[in-house]
Amino acid sequence: MANDKPARRPRAETPKGFRDYFGAEVIERKAMLDAIAGVYHRYGFDPLETSAVETVEALGKFLPDVDRPNEGVFAWQDEDADWLALRYDLTAPLARVAAQYRNDLPSPYRRYAMGPVWRNEKPGPGRFRQFYQCDADTVGSASVAADAEMCAMLADALEEVGIDKGDYIIKVNNRKVLNGVMEVAGLAGDDKEAERGIVLRAIDKIDRLGPEGVRALLGEGRKDESGDFTKGAGLSAEQINVLMKFVGWKDLLGAAVEVFQPAIQSGRAHNPEQLNRLVLSKLREIVVGSDVGNDGVDELEQISSLLSAQGYGPDRIVIDPGVVRGLGYYTGPVYEAELTFQITDEKGRPRNFGSVAGGGRYDGLVKRFTGQDVPATGVSIGVDRLLAALRAKGRVGAQAAGPVVVTVMDRDRMADYMRFVGMLRQADLDPSDPSKGKIRAEVYLGNPKNFGNQLKYADKRGSPIAIIQGGNEAAEGKVILKDLILGAKIAESATLEEWKDRPAQVLVDEADLVAAVRKMLGQ
Amino acid sequence: MANDKPARRPRAETPKGFRDYFGAEVIERKAMLDAIAGVYHRYGFDPLETSAVETVEALGKFLPDVDRPNEGVFAWQDEDADWLALRYDLTAPLARVAAQYRNDLPSPYRRYAMGPVWRNEKPGPGRFRQFYQCDADTVGSASVAADAEMCAMLADALEEVGIDKGDYIIKVNNRKVLNGVMEVAGLAGDDKEAERGIVLRAIDKIDRLGPEGVRALLGEGRKDESGDFTKGAGLSAEQINVLMKFVGWKDLLGAAVEVFQPAIQSGRAHNPEQLNRLVLSKLREIVVGSDVGNDGVDELEQISSLLSAQGYGPDRIVIDPGVVRGLGYYTGPVYEAELTFQITDEKGRPRNFGSVAGGGRYDGLVKRFTGQDVPATGVSIGVDRLLAALRAKGRVGAQAAGPVVVTVMDRDRMADYMRFVGMLRQADLDPSDPSKGKIRAEVYLGNPKNFGNQLKYADKRGSPIAIIQGGNEAAEGKVILKDLILGAKIAESATLEEWKDRPAQVLVDEADLVAAVRKMLGQ
Repeated sequence: MANDKPARRPRAETPKGFRDYFGAEVIERKAMLDAIAGVYHRYGFDPLETSAVETVEALGKFLPDVDRPNEGVFAWQDEDADWLALRYDLTAPLARVAAQYRNDLPSPYRRYAMGPVWRNEKPGPGRFRQFYQCDADTVGSASVAADAEMCAMLADALEEVGIDKGDYIIKVNNRKVLNGVMEVAGLAGDDKEAERGIVLRAIDKIDRLGPEGVRALLGEGRKDESGDFTKGAGLSAEQINVLMKFVGWKDLLGAAVEVFQPAIQSGRAHNPEQLNRLVLSKLREIVVGSDVGNDGVDELEQISSLLSAQGYGPDRIVIDPGVVRGLGYYTGPVYEAELTFQITDEKGRPRNFGSVAGGGRYDGLVKRFTGQDVPATGVSIGVDRLLAALRAKGRVGAQAAGPVVVTVMDRDRMADYMRFVGMLRQADLDPSDPSKGKIRAEVYLGNPKNFGNQLKYADKRGSPIAIIQGGNEAAEGKVILKDLILGAKIAESATLEEWKDRPAQVLVDEADLVAAVRKMLGQ
Repeated sequence: MANDKPARRPRAETPKGFRDYFGAEVIERKAMLDAIAGVYHRYGFDPLETSAVETVEALGKFLPDVDRPNEGVFAWQDEDADWLALRYDLTAPLARVAAQYRNDLPSPYRRYAMGPVWRNEKPGPGRFRQFYQCDADTVGSASVAADAEMCAMLADALEEVGIDKGDYIIKVNNRKVLNGVMEVAGLAGDDKEAERGIVLRAIDKIDRLGPEGVRALLGEGRKDESGDFTKGAGLSAEQINVLMKFVGWKDLLGAAVEVFQPAIQSGRAHNPEQLNRLVLSKLREIVVGSDVGNDGVDELEQISSLLSAQGYGPDRIVIDPGVVRGLGYYTGPVYEAELTFQITDEKGRPRNFGSVAGGGRYDGLVKRFTGQDVPATGVSIGVDRLLAALRAKGRVGAQAAGPVVVTVMDRDRMADYMRFVGMLRQADLDPSDPSKGKIRAEVYLGNPKNFGNQLKYADKRGSPIAIIQGGNEAAEGKVILKDLILGAKIAESATLEEWKDRPAQVLVDEADLVAAVRKMLGQ
């Protein structure tokens, strides 16, 4: 028609840096988060679901991760000229809630939150602008028992989702120990914040720069290979010696933990608590003369004994001064969960899986809003990393099974096919265990003309069984069950022997359909 | 400090029109959505989770609900000057996905999606700018079996979440019947679209305007009480008679369904299929001479017989030409789930709960992207309305029980209290049914100085039991269990008799803690 000029068609694409999640991906993540939520719930934590949108004012224009200050948020202006933004994490909304409802919430307030967050940053491989976070925090408790509880809960959560004892270790450190060292080195006080910042960043780089590089950064500064000069903290030789002694011990103790952990986890250590005691006594020596340092070691000692009382020994949770991640952000105990099993990286080399969760104690959660310091401690699980670990361990996928597909031989007999599918859907998969749910089944709803297309469809759906009833079978009140996974199993199996007596398809009475499906599904 | 002038503190508030969901609210909604997802999964539907953010180009700047064209989206400009927006429903992202992955997805593609959507509209009481949707759609099937399946699945989903048979009815109509009437009235053809629009809107207003008002709108036009004139469709008397006859029958048949439904649902009807047959034969008479109209009645007849074959009779799903909702949007069968029990409204008057879900068949899902018509049918459950219905029926809340609270009598014995809490958390609530989960428990983590505050905290947490161990009990290896719900139960019960033998607190050996907690919890 003359007046029907079509406009350019829109592109069917996700925005750059966003993606879609299909079928099994959604089910697997949900199963993992449900299992974690079950543990959090058991520990007395309550769910909190805030909206995706916050005022920029409440959110603050900052991100907790100081190493990447350029990360931004997705923001826009409201019709009232207020700026709104998508949350960039789950902690900022918690801070707002803790302030907004401070008179109504129980105190301490244990809450967990799971959901997407958004970052307006450059997308990259495996790096998306929307991703899941899974946090638990206790707000309003200054007790180290709250930190110990976080570590125990994290251990339980990892085991609940399928990471076995021995395949993970939770390492605990304390920011106050470092503060103690700073104090011994004469770096306490509000006026030394800049120097402390340089020291923190320098210590963080020991793996890359080595002791001499760190020493240079603590002193006058350091020229890198390209000739660029980084100004140092300008500390005295004495100050540098105190700090470097700590760095040396920290690394040595961290290494000791790495070395002895396998023996402890495998039960070959005679006295597993000894490692924690050794580490604590050494730390005590390093911070001698500093109140805050001693406090820090005391707290680590208490955490260790509170955890032992609950049965969480150093085979699962260990004091490790080598943990530096987040020390700049946290104010007290910090903890990190590492998976200790090896995976093969993209170049075929074995490597440790590494960190999947971390957290710690932080002040000032609600201070921005109320002016009051409220102590809080919390943990965040890296949802995508943990899910990747479970996939590497083969611990996911069972729930993502395809449906039984009832094929359509005769378009006019759709009512019969729908009757079959209704019978299946209303039947328990395993009558002795209704918690396994009912049989998943569907009727083919495409054009039934080409039967081959129906089997291709069933294959694409990962269907275990196709149900077939043509005119002959219908006349006799029979149905055919075709075992669609048999072929794949034969291919996997070294020998055909165990399959040769198993028929690829069976003919059964309509009345026996449900029983025959259960049998073929191995229930 | 002189240079430490604090800026104005940010307000701790959600943006206007947004809200937070706490504890039980989150758990109840999640339990409902999980139950629905279980049914969808059983029917062979796969989950799809698209991102919250879409390009405005892919989303289209329109909403399906034509009555409220001013509803907007939250949108902003990307750094590349592309416009991005938060999705306003789950259908637009499905359209984009169906086009983007058309070569990879199984066809037909059955998918479900659950999650928040965002509307940049004026908030009001109970009307938020972020809310949940819960959709299931079958893309790529032209078969009415797909529509019938949607209705059966909707019935199963309602029953699964706790709406009993007899408390709901799913009404099915077909847009093609109306199209047939339009054809009989000489309103077929592309050039009559404006007239058909006016007719649709007029018919929709019969409840408010009455037959004479609708007649006026079909003819020259209508002057309302304020004197404003609305131009009519300008139809002839003959055309108007055809349409009004249909409107009359539609309303009469709709009323008949309303009247006979209770008898059918309660099993008092001798021949429940008769109502559907009567309605169908009447519709056949009305559309006589119109192919599309006859098609429409054929489809309704097929849906009815496909559903009967699966056991979904008119006690649950009924043909009802009275359904007009969405007729302007849908192109074939439409369906709507109504709850038939009464609730008391805010003024204390009984009223029917009404609609909680609806859907239908629509063309052009992916046409914007690919130019091709792809048939699709889908259903959307009103998450907040259904949840409100479940609350009205007392069908939610069991899972939101508070934790056992272990109190702290002696700060130095925290390790013992954490040991107790660890014992409880590791114990099955009901050893004979591990699917009930483990005992929910927590230790009090606030300042333990004031014991009264600990009990107040337990009360705020909805805790069923407080565990207490002071120095005396510890010396004897005993613990006290205090029954915190007993008081509330006594208050509820008409007589004290049944409670008088039940002690409000018991003293037990530490080793019997778990057993005693189970007993007090009624397990």
